[in-house]
Amino acid sequence: MSSSVLIETGVWAGWRTWPHDAFENGVGPFYYRRDENNRSISRFIAEPRHMNGGGFMHGGCFMTFADFSCFAICEDHHQGGPAVTVNLSADFLSSARVGEVIESTGEVTRAGGRLIYVRGLITADGRPCLSFSSVISKIKPRVGDTPPVGA
Amino acid sequence: MSSSVLIETGVWAGWRTWPHDAFENGVGPFYYRRDENNRSISRFIAEPRHMNGGGFMHGGCFMTFADFSCFAICEDHHQGGPAVTVNLSADFLSSARVGEVIESTGEVTRAGGRLIYVRGLITADGRPCLSFSSVISKIKPRVGDTPPVGA
Amino acid sequence: MSSSVLIETGVWAGWRTWPHDAFENGVGPFYYRRDENNRSISRFIAEPRHMNGGGFMHGGCFMTFADFSCFAICEDHHQGGPAVTVNLSADFLSSARVGEVIESTGEVTRAGGRLIYVRGLITADGRPCLSFSSVISKIKPRVGDTPPVGA
Amino acid sequence: MSSSVLIETGVWAGWRTWPHDAFENGVGPFYYRRDENNRSISRFIAEPRHMNGGGFMHGGCFMTFADFSCFAICEDHHQGGPAVTVNLSADFLSSARVGEVIESTGEVTRAGGRLIYVRGLITADGRPCLSFSSVISKIKPRVGDTPPVGA
Repeated sequence: MSSSVLIETGVWAGWRTWPHDAFENGVGPFYYRRDENNRSISRFIAEPRHMNGGGFMHGGCFMTFADFSCFAICEDHHQGGPAVTVNLSADFLSSARVGEVIESTGEVTRAGGRLIYVRGLITADGRPCLSFSSVISKIKPRVGDTPPVGA
Repeated sequence: MSSSVLIETGVWAGWRTWPHDAFENGVGPFYYRRDENNRSISRFIAEPRHMNGGGFMHGGCFMTFADFSCFAICEDHHQGGPAVTVNLSADFLSSARVGEVIESTGEVTRAGGRLIYVRGLITADGRPCLSFSSVISKIKPRVGDTPPVGA
Repeated sequence: MSSSVLIETGVWAGWRTWPHDAFENGVGPFYYRRDENNRSISRFIAEPRHMNGGGFMHGGCFMTFADFSCFAICEDHHQGGPAVTVNLSADFLSSARVGEVIESTGEVTRAGGRLIYVRGLITADGRPCLSFSSVISKIKPRVGDTPPVGA
Repeated sequence: MSSSVLIETGVWAGWRTWPHDAFENGVGPFYYRRDENNRSISRFIAEPRHMNGGGFMHGGCFMTFADFSCFAICEDHHQGGPAVTVNLSADFLSSARVGEVIESTGEVTRAGGRLIYVRGLITADGRPCLSFSSVISKIKPRVGDTPPVGA
């Protein structure tokens, strides 16, 4: 995780994103900010390119946004170093359609020395769509290393 | 799920995909076929656009491909009708890099009257990267209905 | 699920349990009630027999209590008929020790016609220990049938 | 995890168990051994005390046995030190009844420096019942410490 950047103009002014993440920017971009209670909120607007063959939001889109949300939710705990997802479990409650406001909130249920546990809920126009739970591991950068997941 | 189509020319000749899925085609396309043992194999090649800010494959890309793979794996059980993911759990074993062959295989652990259970493994150049497990529900189409997940 | 019964005397007076569940009564018993906000709370006291070889609460004890809690949390939705767990995912946040008050609360994130989605948190003396998420399926009893899970 | 012991007499002669685990011995005991291919197999016989109110094996019993099985499956990777479960996800495929032989096999999908990933399948008289996936963390013993999960 490199640092996120603040959007300064346009409809997303005041929101943050990670601009160097090619996959998230291709699928999204997705945005997050803190609300008045310092709680992290993530958001994007559903477009036709997010839909599956049935005209509903693709599960992979939901899970990509869930993964983004997890890092937004636990931002205070992984700052200053890289972190990777160890496990993500997703329960699909309801689908979402083009034009709906897709939003995610959640909380850190535990932050240990190495592992961070997050859970959250994605809604579409306020309707619960995806309940997710994730374990994230902070990692130490290692030069010339093989892929660092699960280290 | 509408029907998949067979690719007839080019490097993916002999593989199948679902051409009407906007999200999968934007992120992928992903492809699947049966091997000599009638076992489903899914595959795509990792590109820069699949990577996260750290230069490794994004978890959302892995999970989108896992979701695609699940439907390829249980194709014989949901043919003739729509189906949705109820739960997907993903363990991130290792990451993947640009240029690697991303492949997925798995099996149906149970197919009931309504629910189908699938598990599988995604590899990158043969290295285990994502272990996934999914519950899929066959659904009956309902005219004018609210989103049909979890019905 | 048969009906739960109200405990009328002793330290657990005012709490409910399912007395015909051999496994829960051997491991527990576990108890639940509604608080002033009609929210379901489950509870038991950790004893030496709930511990693993390291002197901490066994993961299987946590998950058994999580499964009990799920049915307590969604009680209003499965009344009048049997229901089975389809998936349960558990994140282990912290352990628990002998003598601690083990408590669980949670919510139904969606109740569809067939599937009920629940998530919750188990604490020990207020410290978060297990975050769980579960999908439960209502089932129709079928005479002379093979085991009804995942039907 | 302390060391397991070999059963030398009786019907379980040749199998191993962890005798100092109060919870497992109360619910089980459960047993494991290596087959001719050095693959770990875990086993117990379903008794009335393992059943729920509906006369089928309780989900908590399945998950306790899954947790036991995980440590048996990855025994070679956590020897010499304690280890704890970080996440366990369970898909309930089918139920089990009194008298059936409950058996579990599985594999380590990745063993990193700290985290071990396991998946497996529990069967009853050969019928698939529970598909499970688990992340286990090796931990360093710490004197006088708070519970060491998620460290």
